Amino acid sequence: MIHHQARKSLATIIDGKAIAEEIRSRVASDVKRMKAYIGKVPGLAVILVGQRRDSQTYVRNKIKACEEAGIKSVMAELPNCCAEEDVMTALLKFNEDPSVHGILVQLPLPEHLDEEKILNMLSLEKDVDGFHPVNMGNLSMRGREPLFVPCAPKGCLELLIRSGMEIVGKKAVVIGRSNIVGLPIALLLQRHHATVTIVHAFTKNPEQITCEADIIVTAAGVPNLIRSSWLKQGAVVIDVGTCPIEDPSSEHGYRLVGDVCHEEALRIASAVTPVPGGVGPMTIAMLLCNTLDSAKRVYRFD
Amino acid sequence: MIHHQARKSLATIIDGKAIAEEIRSRVASDVKRMKAYIGKVPGLAVILVGQRRDSQTYVRNKIKACEEAGIKSVMAELPNCCAEEDVMTALLKFNEDPSVHGILVQLPLPEHLDEEKILNMLSLEKDVDGFHPVNMGNLSMRGREPLFVPCAPKGCLELLIRSGMEIVGKKAVVIGRSNIVGLPIALLLQRHHATVTIVHAFTKNPEQITCEADIIVTAAGVPNLIRSSWLKQGAVVIDVGTCPIEDPSSEHGYRLVGDVCHEEALRIASAVTPVPGGVGPMTIAMLLCNTLDSAKRVYRFD
Repeated sequence: MIHHQARKSLATIIDGKAIAEEIRSRVASDVKRMKAYIGKVPGLAVILVGQRRDSQTYVRNKIKACEEAGIKSVMAELPNCCAEEDVMTALLKFNEDPSVHGILVQLPLPEHLDEEKILNMLSLEKDVDGFHPVNMGNLSMRGREPLFVPCAPKGCLELLIRSGMEIVGKKAVVIGRSNIVGLPIALLLQRHHATVTIVHAFTKNPEQITCEADIIVTAAGVPNLIRSSWLKQGAVVIDVGTCPIEDPSSEHGYRLVGDVCHEEALRIASAVTPVPGGVGPMTIAMLLCNTLDSAKRVYRFD
Repeated sequence: MIHHQARKSLATIIDGKAIAEEIRSRVASDVKRMKAYIGKVPGLAVILVGQRRDSQTYVRNKIKACEEAGIKSVMAELPNCCAEEDVMTALLKFNEDPSVHGILVQLPLPEHLDEEKILNMLSLEKDVDGFHPVNMGNLSMRGREPLFVPCAPKGCLELLIRSGMEIVGKKAVVIGRSNIVGLPIALLLQRHHATVTIVHAFTKNPEQITCEADIIVTAAGVPNLIRSSWLKQGAVVIDVGTCPIEDPSSEHGYRLVGDVCHEEALRIASAVTPVPGGVGPMTIAMLLCNTLDSAKRVYRFD
């Protein structure tokens, strides 16, 4: 799954797409087995509010991935102008539906809706995104086990492990501290006994911190932020940034770029994820894993 | 409140005892005002299981502090061998008692009791210790507000602010990652926009990390762990460690020492908390603050 470059001095490119495909086919075979043994399949419900193009694309990709894995998916599409009660009604219906094992509220929600209030109503046992404060609290606390670990962080961890990087005792720097990526990645790395520092907008001289890190996970959304001077020789670099930049030569007129100056990182790091084809596909694969795990928990199937 | 040493080159000793007394007298005057205006006082319930000497002392000090501030306290004392249901019964009674605004389960609980299960039953609105996973989750997440911030971390922050240390953008290192001290302090410092690193048992060369920190909060429980070589010139050092060591000359045959080699820190740091008389008294003061705030929230009194 890991392609070594021709020149020995160049970093390994961690092939998230291939690893994700392997995981998805494992999920598919588990779903098949579940269906054969107990006549049930996992179910994912998606709530999409409004018409954001990017959200529509993400949701479409997630639903397509469910289909391919044999996971049943249902969707509630609500107009941008809908009331909070409409979202709540859809959510509570899915909370009570025994054929639904995972519920995903596609973020961001339109401004007039109270994201916190809505996410807090989501059944803990179906919180496959892991964004409920109880899941986040249990992720942060020692000796506790969250029911679900957020998908992108879980995907990053899997890529780190596949890159052969030992995590215990390593210096890890996470760039960005969003609730859905940076924060849970930092908490997850800490659970695996890394020494973790979070770098953010208020950090002074961030490159002095990152250039001592064995592991860098960056989720800043700033193209080319991470130059060679930011990296320690041999570091593993996981790039969660996705920023659309104009590109007339591409099909849609734009392409996605990460936070890392890929060419420079290749010369310094020992392993790097590409964008696209790195963390992105892993996030969807982990959503399938979380949904499958949830159904296994409900049906006591293993 | 901050005593400058005679020799200008020595660090300021942050007088936690004096600052705590000031806060406690402010709480007392607020309680008096509440009683005068609405005829109510805040109430704290304490659940103490077993006969640990240290726990008994802590609880006694907390209850005494409540009395002095005019806060009503009630206590459920349960034998070491009690069943989980007995703790639950006491807890649920306090959850429902409208005259109780804060509930504290003194930790650690005896081994046979499920701490997680018990703490999770505690009413969120009365969780003055801030250990419920929802409060911890909301402490960790941006844009969320925990109902209560744990007392020792809150006390450390107050001492930092009183020491004149600007927190935004500063490098902070927290030593230790317990659920009740290290973790919530790290989360709180991050909320205040410090660049935070948690150092723990698996961290390699911890002194290389601490010696770059502007702020050090140490909660390792290892006497004299923090020597001068661990410190950056001018750092502020908050010592949460308390370890009893034998001392025949002292009244009880032992005395409490912190993690910091105090004499060495005085020569390097710009400000240091003593042990005892630093974070300890602040923890109790913050418990009173949290209980008062909880009562104010219930009675909509300000």
